[in-house]
Amino acid sequence: MNSNDTDFLADWEQLSQIGRVEGTLGVDREAASAADGEQRRWFAELLRSRGFTVHRDEIGNLFGLLELVPGAPYVLTGSHLDSQPTAGRFDGAYGVLASAYACFRLADRLRNEAAPPVRNLAVVNWFNEEGSRFKPSLMGSGVFTGKLSLAEALETRDKKGTSVRAALDALEERGNFAALNVASYAEIHVQQGRSMEEGGIAIGLVDATWGARKYELRVRGEQSHSGSTLMTDRRDALLAAARLIVAARELVDEFPPGALHSACGEIQVYPNSPVVVASEASVLIDFRSENTEFLQEAARRFLTIAAEIAEQDRVEVEIAAEHSWERNPYTPQGVELARAVAQELGVTHDTVMTVAGHDSTNMKDVVPTVMLFVPSVEGRSHSVRELTSDADMLAGVRMLTEVVHRLASSQDL
Amino acid sequence: MNSNDTDFLADWEQLSQIGRVEGTLGVDREAASAADGEQRRWFAELLRSRGFTVHRDEIGNLFGLLELVPGAPYVLTGSHLDSQPTAGRFDGAYGVLASAYACFRLADRLRNEAAPPVRNLAVVNWFNEEGSRFKPSLMGSGVFTGKLSLAEALETRDKKGTSVRAALDALEERGNFAALNVASYAEIHVQQGRSMEEGGIAIGLVDATWGARKYELRVRGEQSHSGSTLMTDRRDALLAAARLIVAARELVDEFPPGALHSACGEIQVYPNSPVVVASEASVLIDFRSENTEFLQEAARRFLTIAAEIAEQDRVEVEIAAEHSWERNPYTPQGVELARAVAQELGVTHDTVMTVAGHDSTNMKDVVPTVMLFVPSVEGRSHSVRELTSDADMLAGVRMLTEVVHRLASSQDL
Repeated sequence: MNSNDTDFLADWEQLSQIGRVEGTLGVDREAASAADGEQRRWFAELLRSRGFTVHRDEIGNLFGLLELVPGAPYVLTGSHLDSQPTAGRFDGAYGVLASAYACFRLADRLRNEAAPPVRNLAVVNWFNEEGSRFKPSLMGSGVFTGKLSLAEALETRDKKGTSVRAALDALEERGNFAALNVASYAEIHVQQGRSMEEGGIAIGLVDATWGARKYELRVRGEQSHSGSTLMTDRRDALLAAARLIVAARELVDEFPPGALHSACGEIQVYPNSPVVVASEASVLIDFRSENTEFLQEAARRFLTIAAEIAEQDRVEVEIAAEHSWERNPYTPQGVELARAVAQELGVTHDTVMTVAGHDSTNMKDVVPTVMLFVPSVEGRSHSVRELTSDADMLAGVRMLTEVVHRLASSQDL
Repeated sequence: MNSNDTDFLADWEQLSQIGRVEGTLGVDREAASAADGEQRRWFAELLRSRGFTVHRDEIGNLFGLLELVPGAPYVLTGSHLDSQPTAGRFDGAYGVLASAYACFRLADRLRNEAAPPVRNLAVVNWFNEEGSRFKPSLMGSGVFTGKLSLAEALETRDKKGTSVRAALDALEERGNFAALNVASYAEIHVQQGRSMEEGGIAIGLVDATWGARKYELRVRGEQSHSGSTLMTDRRDALLAAARLIVAARELVDEFPPGALHSACGEIQVYPNSPVVVASEASVLIDFRSENTEFLQEAARRFLTIAAEIAEQDRVEVEIAAEHSWERNPYTPQGVELARAVAQELGVTHDTVMTVAGHDSTNMKDVVPTVMLFVPSVEGRSHSVRELTSDADMLAGVRMLTEVVHRLASSQDL
């Protein structure tokens, strides 16, 4: 193990202590929380200590810049430090630290090479990838790529009514940096699935995302006494919401095994009181598939069932918000570049699709992008039990280093 | 309409403004909220203005005492001013004001009668009957009757972590009154069902409560990514909770129409985040029936189904708390006393069961108790649309006045 590897692992240990969930190896570092503030300060200091200049933009994305070629565009590489509540320490954070270390390694190497680099290097920690405290997810990269309005993002509020603007300002983590000229983007992340582990693959070359259909359904019934009201008089919003959750799960079994994923992770109920039939309930229902036809059919079936539930329970079911994307390819030349690197390094590799969204899902639509995966044990994700081995992490850093090297050394991408 | 009636309706209008929900005729006056504080001060002032002495006990029950016979026991009459969130203005509050007005009417009458009274008069506003902010319900009467420990009740916390003790102390609504010698209890309440309205009954003579089985079920699964985790790897606590809610409703259809009520009014989910399979969920499931065999069978079937759900979804389902009561009679002599009064007044009346719990459900176990109902339009309850007509309210005050008169004039009950 070289000194860069041991330094990486030592810094990884330090980072993993921030926001640690007692009695577990997991962390709780939701966007703009105290723990997020702590890790952002730690990370900014790490970048500065290695000669990078640190900047924050108006939505709290944190950049570390190293200018090697005055005026040239940047290869940007990074991921996100924020986590879900009580989640794993790898999701996002691994990619941020791996990106920093890839650039640390390359800084001297690029300065001393015969052929000078054509790009500068930048590391990024995207703000609020997770979207658990402030919706939507992928917020920082969404604003950066112009997909989400800055004003709207800053006004987003958490359940306690705190805005993104106020939460970031309290941490002094908003700036006005806006001048980055990005030539290409590279990200590395844990897989959040088990196919690489099962296939013995060290590096995943992400070539596409699954499609998704997401619905926020709002159910309106009527408050009444949950003991005494005749069953036939009730208009129970929570009951209808529960039927929607069950229906979304049952739909999965109408498709080939593994072809459709569905979930409901969040429900809000009013008044949510023990002896009151609920008058309002909202659920977030999520369908994903790599097969567009399956996804369309699942969405069509689900909305038909939702209408039947509304009639049966005498409630209104309204689509309050929806968000969907189709199966979407990553930059094919980016996949080929990564494949060439993996072959050169002699690491086991294969193309893989991502079911989860990533900041690279936003970036790939505006600049050439390379997305890499390292394996997750049993595919555990959004869990304190999330695990990727040191060896797999270090192989990922090596891989990312060479990908960024190629991106910085040529104008091909 | 006599002046007592017009005064009652004028005070009723004033009381109904406190905690009014904008745009509705309903109120939001949860226990120990600011609105509850306001109505408690208003009610204490009303009692004082009519010559009653006002006392508070350690759990915040508010008493108005009128001593007519030094040293004699008291006829206690009352109900509760607190409400569910965004609920009706009648539930509880009508009974409190009706009790006060019954005693106001009787004060002079009893002093001037040939045969002197044998009991004194006391009005009560029980603390936290609803149990929406602080569980359990029937808290004030529970502590008063020794069914619930004072220390435990005071330490109960709402969702924000505020204790009953702190909330009451902030309103200066705790005292140390503990000396009430109660001979008998009378309460009047809106029906929260539609049978009296449909039957043209002005006064319901409550002769029994339905039985109930209440379960707080805690589901434990495992956090994971709600998009990428294989369906077969998931242990989804929210999905299992939704299945429990649907199962409780479906059980109703296995029994004769109207024989079984079931509900879930409250669910708590962790982490309740859009892209996370929930690791924990709690639901409060409530079964009620007047038929003990049906209730037992429903509970047995439900717990069997819960075990099946646990196996199917690979989660743990645990009974975290349960609370049950059997079909339970009210004091038969109390029912007969009320029947005699109704006949004398010439009001339409019939015996009726209560499905909802009341403070009288506690009191009837320690002293002879009379429980009366007035009709509710369409049985609407725990809803801002709750409605009882002025005429029905006034008929109830007259009825309660004569019931309390009989209780105060004789030692029979």
